[in-house]
Amino acid sequence: MSRPNVREQLIEAGLETLHRNGFNGSGVQDITDSAGVPKGSFYNHFESKEDLALQALERYWQNGLDRRALLTDPKVDPVERLRRYFRSLSDVMVRQNFEKGCMVGGFSSEMSIRSPEIRARLAEIFAAWSRSIETCVRDAEKLGRVRTRLPADVIAPFLLNAWEGAVLRSKVEQSKAPFEQFERVIFASILD
Amino acid sequence: MSRPNVREQLIEAGLETLHRNGFNGSGVQDITDSAGVPKGSFYNHFESKEDLALQALERYWQNGLDRRALLTDPKVDPVERLRRYFRSLSDVMVRQNFEKGCMVGGFSSEMSIRSPEIRARLAEIFAAWSRSIETCVRDAEKLGRVRTRLPADVIAPFLLNAWEGAVLRSKVEQSKAPFEQFERVIFASILD
Repeated sequence: MSRPNVREQLIEAGLETLHRNGFNGSGVQDITDSAGVPKGSFYNHFESKEDLALQALERYWQNGLDRRALLTDPKVDPVERLRRYFRSLSDVMVRQNFEKGCMVGGFSSEMSIRSPEIRARLAEIFAAWSRSIETCVRDAEKLGRVRTRLPADVIAPFLLNAWEGAVLRSKVEQSKAPFEQFERVIFASILD
Repeated sequence: MSRPNVREQLIEAGLETLHRNGFNGSGVQDITDSAGVPKGSFYNHFESKEDLALQALERYWQNGLDRRALLTDPKVDPVERLRRYFRSLSDVMVRQNFEKGCMVGGFSSEMSIRSPEIRARLAEIFAAWSRSIETCVRDAEKLGRVRTRLPADVIAPFLLNAWEGAVLRSKVEQSKAPFEQFERVIFASILD
């Protein structure tokens, strides 16, 4: 087994383990066990659990790229694009039985104070994520489909944060009701 | 030092430690050190760290009682009550330099899967919390101050979840901008 392959196995196992159990809830041993590699090999590839967590977060963010493309599909009405995008995000949570939540949100809660490096990367991810939503909100605005005169750079982060809050609640309720409430309110009072 | 006093010290130290560092980020030793009691005394008062976490969560929820009274003050306009309430919640996060976030949200993220007992109590807390907001939304509705025809029992949990999402984001940004965005959107598009 070549080294790059072990590294790749560790990133994938780290993504699964850290996403499910959180940073503090996952040991290096849990990750190497899940990857099926000896614990000793971990430090050949990563300086620390934090280092792997950054790579796993990167992978999580990159894995969402295809889904974010829903926001820019020029053939689809921008409000419908936003609806499809948030629906598709929520559907992932439903398929995972509300067990894992959003890794970006989970790390935000758990790691913002503990790791300045992870916090800095989370801030960049949230900013980029908000901007991709903001572009779509602007398209909706141009068509007169935004019910308020607030700027798109206020509406977009609000939508994203509200969705993250719905994820938290869905973990507690073990139910998709928070996503349905999110959709109902957003598409009745903010977007037209 | 009498036993009830030690128990009380452990609950207060547990609240501070678990709120700041999360369940998995806090050891029993951290809590007994912070309480200034011997580690051995912990299990005289609590069956487990989970048992203490439930008591600390209870204390956290009870500590919010005075603030929740803002929602029912009959001398204040109901929309203003909601504004003051969310502002006062957000102000706590600002005063804590965005370091601790909301314990209910943090435990929701970290403990929903790990502890059925904590999850069950979080679900009750969220339900009661939503209901207290819902009552105020209904008062606003009676005065024609809700901009949408959605039922109060959809709007209220949405507001609470959106606020929880703003908390997450504020930890990452180390900024109150997410709370300002929350307020601007809520009071321009949902409440009048």
